[in-house]
Amino acid sequence: MVSDRSLNNCGILLAALIGFTATVQAGAVWISYPGDYALWRGNDLQARRIEHGGGYPVFWPTYAPHPLVDFRKDVDLKAPETVELASEGVCRIMGLGLASPMPGVVSNRFTFPAGKYTVVARVYSQGKPPAIYMDGPTVKTGPSWKADWRMAAAWQKGVISPPAECGSAGRLAPPTVCSGGEIRPSQFTLATRPAEPVAQKRIRGDHVFADFGRETFGFLRLRGVKGKGRIRIVYGESEPEAMCEDFNGSDQWEYVDAEPGEEQRLKVSRGWRYVHVIPEAGVSVAGVAMDEELCPLSRVGAFRCSEERLNRIWEVSARTLELTTREIYIEGAKRDRWTWSGDARQSYLMGYYLFGESGLARDTLFYQRGGDPVVMHVNQIMDYTFYWFLSVREYYLYTGDRVFLEQVYDRMVSLMDFAIGRLDANGRPHDRPGDWMFIDWAPETLHNTGGVTSFEQMLLVEALEALAYVSETIGRGDAGYRARAAKLRAEIVPLFWSEEKGALMHLLKDDGTLDAQLTRYPNMFGLASGYFNDAQRESVLKNVIFNDAVMKIQTPYMRFYELEALCRLGLRKRVLDEVRAYWGGMLDEGATSFWELYNPDEKGAAKYAMYGRPFGKSLCHAWGASPIYLFGRYVLGVEPTKPGYAEYVVAPDLGGLDWAEGVVPTPHGPITVSVKGGVATAAGPANCTGTLRWNGKAVRIPPAK
Amino acid sequence: MVSDRSLNNCGILLAALIGFTATVQAGAVWISYPGDYALWRGNDLQARRIEHGGGYPVFWPTYAPHPLVDFRKDVDLKAPETVELASEGVCRIMGLGLASPMPGVVSNRFTFPAGKYTVVARVYSQGKPPAIYMDGPTVKTGPSWKADWRMAAAWQKGVISPPAECGSAGRLAPPTVCSGGEIRPSQFTLATRPAEPVAQKRIRGDHVFADFGRETFGFLRLRGVKGKGRIRIVYGESEPEAMCEDFNGSDQWEYVDAEPGEEQRLKVSRGWRYVHVIPEAGVSVAGVAMDEELCPLSRVGAFRCSEERLNRIWEVSARTLELTTREIYIEGAKRDRWTWSGDARQSYLMGYYLFGESGLARDTLFYQRGGDPVVMHVNQIMDYTFYWFLSVREYYLYTGDRVFLEQVYDRMVSLMDFAIGRLDANGRPHDRPGDWMFIDWAPETLHNTGGVTSFEQMLLVEALEALAYVSETIGRGDAGYRARAAKLRAEIVPLFWSEEKGALMHLLKDDGTLDAQLTRYPNMFGLASGYFNDAQRESVLKNVIFNDAVMKIQTPYMRFYELEALCRLGLRKRVLDEVRAYWGGMLDEGATSFWELYNPDEKGAAKYAMYGRPFGKSLCHAWGASPIYLFGRYVLGVEPTKPGYAEYVVAPDLGGLDWAEGVVPTPHGPITVSVKGGVATAAGPANCTGTLRWNGKAVRIPPAK
Repeated sequence: MVSDRSLNNCGILLAALIGFTATVQAGAVWISYPGDYALWRGNDLQARRIEHGGGYPVFWPTYAPHPLVDFRKDVDLKAPETVELASEGVCRIMGLGLASPMPGVVSNRFTFPAGKYTVVARVYSQGKPPAIYMDGPTVKTGPSWKADWRMAAAWQKGVISPPAECGSAGRLAPPTVCSGGEIRPSQFTLATRPAEPVAQKRIRGDHVFADFGRETFGFLRLRGVKGKGRIRIVYGESEPEAMCEDFNGSDQWEYVDAEPGEEQRLKVSRGWRYVHVIPEAGVSVAGVAMDEELCPLSRVGAFRCSEERLNRIWEVSARTLELTTREIYIEGAKRDRWTWSGDARQSYLMGYYLFGESGLARDTLFYQRGGDPVVMHVNQIMDYTFYWFLSVREYYLYTGDRVFLEQVYDRMVSLMDFAIGRLDANGRPHDRPGDWMFIDWAPETLHNTGGVTSFEQMLLVEALEALAYVSETIGRGDAGYRARAAKLRAEIVPLFWSEEKGALMHLLKDDGTLDAQLTRYPNMFGLASGYFNDAQRESVLKNVIFNDAVMKIQTPYMRFYELEALCRLGLRKRVLDEVRAYWGGMLDEGATSFWELYNPDEKGAAKYAMYGRPFGKSLCHAWGASPIYLFGRYVLGVEPTKPGYAEYVVAPDLGGLDWAEGVVPTPHGPITVSVKGGVATAAGPANCTGTLRWNGKAVRIPPAK
Repeated sequence: MVSDRSLNNCGILLAALIGFTATVQAGAVWISYPGDYALWRGNDLQARRIEHGGGYPVFWPTYAPHPLVDFRKDVDLKAPETVELASEGVCRIMGLGLASPMPGVVSNRFTFPAGKYTVVARVYSQGKPPAIYMDGPTVKTGPSWKADWRMAAAWQKGVISPPAECGSAGRLAPPTVCSGGEIRPSQFTLATRPAEPVAQKRIRGDHVFADFGRETFGFLRLRGVKGKGRIRIVYGESEPEAMCEDFNGSDQWEYVDAEPGEEQRLKVSRGWRYVHVIPEAGVSVAGVAMDEELCPLSRVGAFRCSEERLNRIWEVSARTLELTTREIYIEGAKRDRWTWSGDARQSYLMGYYLFGESGLARDTLFYQRGGDPVVMHVNQIMDYTFYWFLSVREYYLYTGDRVFLEQVYDRMVSLMDFAIGRLDANGRPHDRPGDWMFIDWAPETLHNTGGVTSFEQMLLVEALEALAYVSETIGRGDAGYRARAAKLRAEIVPLFWSEEKGALMHLLKDDGTLDAQLTRYPNMFGLASGYFNDAQRESVLKNVIFNDAVMKIQTPYMRFYELEALCRLGLRKRVLDEVRAYWGGMLDEGATSFWELYNPDEKGAAKYAMYGRPFGKSLCHAWGASPIYLFGRYVLGVEPTKPGYAEYVVAPDLGGLDWAEGVVPTPHGPITVSVKGGVATAAGPANCTGTLRWNGKAVRIPPAK
């Protein structure tokens, strides 16, 4: 997506890109408190949302980065050592265990005395997260440093400080390379490149109307601005939306003050395909262009097959994911521009197959988690809290980034404490005022109130298991989470199974009876998570999954899980047919990115409406991009089986296609897969153990050339 | 202290001053989250400390203001209403209970629809605390608004949101007056006025050495700077300190880059009497002047008596307190410039008698408390946590500011939860790694480890009682704190009394025996807090208080409590003698402000040394200013007996002076007291009930003219 020639922030970006590929840095890197840069940039990103002309901040509690952080490292210096030093904020260096205090930091060089002691670099910065960079012969800021905001409370026995955030770890963390402190971590911006509309014209007198040919995201540039006053910009993902001048019609518009001159670049980047520029009386605008704002990740993943429609679907999916990949993953390009944990989980999974993981999932997970004390579910949604835990486990599976687990562990525990504190007397996730059980935008109201839903209970089981797994992985034992998970898991079928319907029911009411609503959600998750014996499994397939009388799923969001369940049942052909119809249907409607929701029966104006608003629907929605994941994971069949692809499987299943080929990124390099003429081949990173499963045989995958 | 003519920030300052006198605002004021402005400014203030040339951040956990705050108010509008609006940050206005969503905020006017609903103004700002101002016919931001960072979690039944911080409440809160949003809350600065040194000369070649005649605080101005390079500034409270060029000698020095020109004003204000300007080779400086930076509070309190030495002591005390009164109270003008809860408690009490209370104690209390989660005692010191609770109770007594109690209550509870979580199995404040039991800088090491100190247990009792009192005052019941306090209170004498010494002992060791160290601390607090029966009281006076063999108190800090105890015993003459000797002794040494510690036996260089550093001692230390309190409270005898001086007593006791007179500020206006020729007179605010006690009679105090 990003061509180096077109980058105008290349210094910082390249620094960041260098960081992406290295897993361990030999040199010094900027370090900061884990997640604080992600939080800081994520907070600002969310707050750039507009609606009906005005700003629209999020509705969940928002945490600030820590203004004061200690960076700590044990050293044993045989001789005094001078380091190059730069800090974001006021810095003081101390030596715990030294008899004399250290001098103040008065230049970009600092000399450590010889001796065995603990270096503490204390950095204060309010408004931008504290960060520090030191580069000497042996003293180098990097992954072996600890970071803590608790000051001396963290020096007590038994208190574990997390590893510092390194330039190479999170994409929004400080950049890797520093030269005398000239590149500050806080200077990071996304790259941009100029773009022109494919058509623009003057309408309704002095308005300018432009079509950029496809969904895009960036900074609008107004050309030839004259006069003094305000200019109203109406953004649209569809032509009718941008044409709409009603203040409550299109909700994506804003006023900007005219800045007369050759070109005025707007200060905030937005998502659109069409723009409509409406100058106030006394102001005129000659035309528009833009600086497209780009996510600083290269596509590594690729997919091609014998059917052009599917190739186009993959391509538009990739564009959709790229447009919703900003400082962190967001939900949609135009409207919400917020980050939602349920949506983000799918972006992560897609991202692993498109970009590999370069800190983006990591940064987004940090943003989503926020800080302490926890007073609300993630995004206020109970399921979104649980998905967050699953996403952490999956992140580790795809990246092998154990350091992240150590960094985020305390925040996993405090979030789970919050969630557990809200369970009912039986320890089940009960409907409770203030906790939103979302599950899905469904055609009918979901019966989520007045009891316990089977779906939430299943997610809670998985969240507890994920936390136990992380806890064990970093050597903290299972902390009791396994037993809690096992108890709840064992309850699922006995509590929610209806012999009459031959399926799991949606809601267990407070009177102990099962509500009559039957939904696909618990049943497809139940299939995926092994809740059923053979007879139950057959029954669920017949009575729910393949039963058209059961309420259909309408959002690409839940279709993600539905299609994944079908893939796991080996039904690739059926999945590809669904993709052809659903995603292909959007293409037929002219989509240049995939939508928040698609209903083939909605035509004309109804196509764009949602949430009771005529243009409420997002036409570039991250969760619309799931073919990236489905094709990589289930058509090419690439799946990590040990963290970070240390071991992996390639088990292609073309579902009736003549041929397919593609690339899946891993932290150690790409895996290539090709299936042509009935022969499957694969190659992968030299230091990973891959197995190709094809035609009932399993062979070791050779290293890529 | 501040004359209006000399203010160069008068717009903002006057706005703040107007706020000081009003208790309820009729018009609109800026509102913010309680304490966030104090925290934000307090954080930056602390981080301006330098030591040995470099910055020196605090060593306690530092919390950031909340980036996202909801301001909430129920309205019932008969007709649509347009307000003038300004916000610090991105603002969205919502109407809970309205059928249609509100439009975006797109100008400095906003129109509310008619109806009965809850206005929620959500404001996002990172780096500066969110704040909002709305002024309409009936919708006016002010004290009836609530503020919450918990978003919808705060809308649940049973959740109590604190009242919003108002322009008139905290001094560091948004200013009171807004005109179209032109004065932003974040623009607040302290006022400054130009000052010249009383003498300056050229020394050691091209150095400039200046004496400003007395301790001062402000921005140094360098005149006639030429050349390119660095200039080293050495600050001194004494001449030897400023003369010292050793990098580890004077710890108060810094480098600044030369900015050639007529005048260069340094960017950070510092405290000094003497400055020594040392240009690097190639740089020269012609001379210096300064902008004195002033706390924006007027002296209301006054004291004069028949003895000039005591008048001078009061005057220098007032100067000392003014110099340590910055954005919030700090400990010392030169060195620490940090805020310590034990020190601050005394500043508050002095401040009530000098400035009245104008938000300064309030802001300092907010800063000291910080945020959640609590992971360390206030300033890491156990006693300082407990003093914080006492200070909140005293703040309420002197100001009657019940709103503050509502604002800070949740933070009182979480701090007490932390403190309780660190008690031993008997619920006593036991020595524990990481918790500093400070008590005092004493001539001998205090036996504070390996057990429970009587002193900390007494403070804990009082802290619990203070919290119970606050809890009851705002209608939340005593929350179990009274019972816990009563149990601990009842234990004090049985546990710590030594029949052999006839006094309370300092430490109860883990083996159940009393440590041999006998100190004044628990005994003087025991006297003040009514722990003793008559026989015990006599014994303590004889064996401790009037026993010169018991380790003397050396710091003005603990002398504050010692002298207060003597005052309460009716020993005014003895107290005045002590003041004459101790504070008078410092005057004889040439003090222009009072010191951190004074030992008449220390002469020459020893006078300035402390903490093992040749100029480690602070010569302008807030806790040195206690005569302001002692004279107002115990010589003039003015004491509030109901919150906010609703009822008060004036019981002068001249301790042998011929005459004395003075003024004590209250939230309702000043109280004047005069005792001359054996006749005491007093006048006070019309709406308060005052009683004059003199010569065994009690009479009602008439309103002041």
